[in-house]
Amino acid sequence: MNSQQLFDQIDKKQSFLCVGLDSDINKIPEHLLESDDPIYAFNKAIVDATAPYCVAYKPNVAFYESLGVQGWLALEKTVAYIHQRYPQQFIIADAKRGDIGNTSEMYARTFFDHMKVDAVTVAPYMGEDSVKPFLIYPERWVILLALTSNKGSNDFQLTKDSEGEPLFAKVLHRSQQWASADQMMYVVGATQGKLFEEVRRIVPDHFLLVPGVGAQGGSLEEVCRHGMNSRCGLLVNSSRNIIYANSGEDFAVAAAEEAKKLQLQMSSMLKQYLQ
Amino acid sequence: MNSQQLFDQIDKKQSFLCVGLDSDINKIPEHLLESDDPIYAFNKAIVDATAPYCVAYKPNVAFYESLGVQGWLALEKTVAYIHQRYPQQFIIADAKRGDIGNTSEMYARTFFDHMKVDAVTVAPYMGEDSVKPFLIYPERWVILLALTSNKGSNDFQLTKDSEGEPLFAKVLHRSQQWASADQMMYVVGATQGKLFEEVRRIVPDHFLLVPGVGAQGGSLEEVCRHGMNSRCGLLVNSSRNIIYANSGEDFAVAAAEEAKKLQLQMSSMLKQYLQ
Repeated sequence: MNSQQLFDQIDKKQSFLCVGLDSDINKIPEHLLESDDPIYAFNKAIVDATAPYCVAYKPNVAFYESLGVQGWLALEKTVAYIHQRYPQQFIIADAKRGDIGNTSEMYARTFFDHMKVDAVTVAPYMGEDSVKPFLIYPERWVILLALTSNKGSNDFQLTKDSEGEPLFAKVLHRSQQWASADQMMYVVGATQGKLFEEVRRIVPDHFLLVPGVGAQGGSLEEVCRHGMNSRCGLLVNSSRNIIYANSGEDFAVAAAEEAKKLQLQMSSMLKQYLQ
Repeated sequence: MNSQQLFDQIDKKQSFLCVGLDSDINKIPEHLLESDDPIYAFNKAIVDATAPYCVAYKPNVAFYESLGVQGWLALEKTVAYIHQRYPQQFIIADAKRGDIGNTSEMYARTFFDHMKVDAVTVAPYMGEDSVKPFLIYPERWVILLALTSNKGSNDFQLTKDSEGEPLFAKVLHRSQQWASADQMMYVVGATQGKLFEEVRRIVPDHFLLVPGVGAQGGSLEEVCRHGMNSRCGLLVNSSRNIIYANSGEDFAVAAAEEAKKLQLQMSSMLKQYLQ
């Protein structure tokens, strides 16, 4: 999927919502634990309930890995299910990978050849040759960590170099030489407030994947005010607020309601801020 | 395993070799492909052949992930086999993980609770709260990326802040507040030459995990001259040079010979540089 196709979906659905499938065996409704594959059963129900209101799904790989082989099976089945039933949904493996070239090649194979997701999140610390192997797949995306939503983003990402440029800005600048806005997005946390303006100055055309609205405290309105461009340019993720909206038998209905609430807000933001 | 126990092994075996299990289905000897689990069969043979000459094994998780569920099974079986047969070997999951706190908790569970390795490599970009969840496990280690062996290490790790401190040095300084030298090691590439001196000035007591000797071109002698401390403080990794020394039926014998060569060099380095 390229950026125009992604925008077409956003425009059609009036939503730039990404539903984060941070599916934790200790948090899903109890009655699902009787199922053969509780995590897959949970994801399937969440996807069926929320698909009308979102354009993307983002399973965070950590939650699956923590269950070992069973977790990987659930993840593979989830991705396959979304592809088959909802082929227009953009699927992001939130994996935050990155290694020396020959090893990043293996990670790229994992996610693009084997699992066939559209995008993978990648950490920039190891530089260009750790990112490039992900970029040889046409119409597949790297989503590079730039300015994350957590407290620890202060530790290194804001460090200014001798010319006053913070590390996250250097990551944005340099990585634009590695790929176009049709293969690269950036993670920018909703909690970063006014720094969104600085990000948009450096990468006016790129899509941003924005975690941190909801449980982490970021404001959707602020993100849109500073971050939206002429093709939206935002995928705003919500995980816990949607998938754990209710822990009873009607968890999927509750998830759909939360997703719909966000979609309605997003529709109004698109009317207000799409340039 | 704590640092004293690790040093005891190094002293006893006169080796600080870590064998990297970057086991690639496209590179292992052809006759193994008939086995039920070729990667596990390969690893088992490599481990049995090299165990006398090394103190650690480092499976790079990317190589296993790229095979999906089959790969994870092979990894789990390999770790279990090493634990059972060679309980004194230190096992490192080279995973380069790191995410917001509640997600890093899941990664920590994966590697420490589920797979029971001794150490995990972690990327520092997301800061303190992305690393801390790995540190609640006593006698388990975080090996933080500081100065990697690849070309891309120039892109961000050497960037100097307004006071002239490069990013890798800031990572070393700041992360010392997060854990003691009994729970934290650092990745420092053998290709970094004289920068080893600067690393040792900042972290005199910590163990360093050193990739890049061999296929990547780093010098063992230089690493030892600048990097060895009074308890050795080095785990030097070799992957491809050992495990793919020969692609015939006697691959394990060839691997043992390569490992033994390195062990003999290391023994001589310990005599020369152990302070």
